[in-house]
Amino acid sequence: MQNTIKIAIIGYGNVGRGAVKAIGRNADMKLACILSRSPERVRKELGDMVSVFTADSIDELKKADVAILCSGSKDDLPIQGPFYAKYINTVDSYDNHSQALSYFKAMDNAAREAGTVSCVSIGWDPGTFSLQRVMGNALIPGSKTYGFYGTTPKGGISMGHSDAIRRIDGVQDARQYTHAIPEAIESARSGESHELKPGDMHWRECFVVAKDGADTTKIEHEIKNMEGYFASYKTIVHFVSQEELDVKCSGFPHDGLVISSGKTGDSNGALIEYRNVWDSNPEATANILVAHARAAKRLADENRRGAFTILDIPPAYLSPHSREELIRSFL
Amino acid sequence: MQNTIKIAIIGYGNVGRGAVKAIGRNADMKLACILSRSPERVRKELGDMVSVFTADSIDELKKADVAILCSGSKDDLPIQGPFYAKYINTVDSYDNHSQALSYFKAMDNAAREAGTVSCVSIGWDPGTFSLQRVMGNALIPGSKTYGFYGTTPKGGISMGHSDAIRRIDGVQDARQYTHAIPEAIESARSGESHELKPGDMHWRECFVVAKDGADTTKIEHEIKNMEGYFASYKTIVHFVSQEELDVKCSGFPHDGLVISSGKTGDSNGALIEYRNVWDSNPEATANILVAHARAAKRLADENRRGAFTILDIPPAYLSPHSREELIRSFL
Repeated sequence: MQNTIKIAIIGYGNVGRGAVKAIGRNADMKLACILSRSPERVRKELGDMVSVFTADSIDELKKADVAILCSGSKDDLPIQGPFYAKYINTVDSYDNHSQALSYFKAMDNAAREAGTVSCVSIGWDPGTFSLQRVMGNALIPGSKTYGFYGTTPKGGISMGHSDAIRRIDGVQDARQYTHAIPEAIESARSGESHELKPGDMHWRECFVVAKDGADTTKIEHEIKNMEGYFASYKTIVHFVSQEELDVKCSGFPHDGLVISSGKTGDSNGALIEYRNVWDSNPEATANILVAHARAAKRLADENRRGAFTILDIPPAYLSPHSREELIRSFL
Repeated sequence: MQNTIKIAIIGYGNVGRGAVKAIGRNADMKLACILSRSPERVRKELGDMVSVFTADSIDELKKADVAILCSGSKDDLPIQGPFYAKYINTVDSYDNHSQALSYFKAMDNAAREAGTVSCVSIGWDPGTFSLQRVMGNALIPGSKTYGFYGTTPKGGISMGHSDAIRRIDGVQDARQYTHAIPEAIESARSGESHELKPGDMHWRECFVVAKDGADTTKIEHEIKNMEGYFASYKTIVHFVSQEELDVKCSGFPHDGLVISSGKTGDSNGALIEYRNVWDSNPEATANILVAHARAAKRLADENRRGAFTILDIPPAYLSPHSREELIRSFL
């Protein structure tokens, strides 16, 4: 057995909570400390089980092998990522697809300069789904790849869409569930449907709590016509009480499906599907981050430097098992 | 665009045929030559489209960048693999799970000594399915992983089981289709079924052509009681004419499903599924081999040496696209 990997968690929200639990499920890892901008809140929640420090506690941070960055992609990671990469190997789940390349470059520069390793955009999408998109494209040249979300009856909660509804005047609270359209999944599998528009693939279900006296007709109209979020989708809006929302819409379930369909040889059908179903989306992200902390440590031990996506890492590096054990029991 | 990768094919059966076509689907590759123990047969089939040489044409072989070894795992690869690894980077689909570690070691020694790269046991199982078994284990610690085959209505052809039936006295020809049992798939997905025995997961359907005057009752009894192949499975035997077999059982369809189910956090369900469906099993293997030829070339260009499984290779190395393009369009 290798030495225990000492992990620091930076930022303690839902993903940070999941990371604490995920570390506990990996026998070769140990939670070294948590850095937070509100250490008192974290200490209150966790008690004495772990050392909690302020976000600028670099000396404490450097006692760990790898830091898992658990704060948000929108405002926090673009600043925190390059900052912490100067001091320690990092893993993060930066998930803004359109900015992923510039984030990668910023992290690559910071990590190369400091002589550290940074695994970036690690989660399930981007992350394991990215891996499948690349594999589908490489293993079935000419294939089309499709991504579906909310393939379970419940659907998958989209935090971004929920937030967008909450910003509407008169809305007290909201949850948005994305649903895949089964016929579109079958069409993607068949390899016969060359173009599926977003609105052909998904519909959106909104559970909304209106403030007392708010105009629900107006709210519903605003939701359904919101450009970039709902306008191009079939959207159903349910108005519910706060109590109903709290009971019906608890937790953060999410799931998705990547389909690559094409041909081999002259005309033989070829299909690769990859599906993840998570009762807890933030815990899923945390689990994937934690496995990549193992990879970050291993890359650093090999004197590798700079930023790595999931595509740059040999999959064996995610595993606690030796190469012999992997060949014997998993190959 | 990188330089064209020159590929040699060694052994020209169904996988070799698939490799020729797969190379044609990859713009960055070129078929350099085919080595065969029966070059006349291959020349007859392919005409002037490619240079065909005898199996000992090492000088011709060495003009290629990578050789794809397309002969059988049972008798050929254990000898051919280490032999050709002395002269050129290789990719093979060695698929005898119980001997995979000793084959890996033999290839690793041969390739290290020669300064070449050998990608071994590359296909869909072992291969892409191995990758998913390792990822499931690493991303959901404590999860159980299950493998199902024949999840389509048609089922998947097992060549090994077909051959076993053909060796029975009185059998002229046979095809065996493996079928997954849907209830077992649901049970694996639920994460509640901890042990599924082979006979709980699959049943076997046999299409058999009996020789004139053969005792079909005896043949059926022998099939159903064959240890290691059929004895522990529900098995259905259909006797058919050669004509029926040729029409109904043409081609080599196969498919499979890897399911890893477990928990994240305290008790949240977590499920990863990976499914491959191939109208042509040998073409699928060929496609995966060809993508790994690209990886072998890249590893060799980095002065890496020795044997690699799919677990040891950064997934980006399978792709013709640059890192920037992968981050921009696939991450």
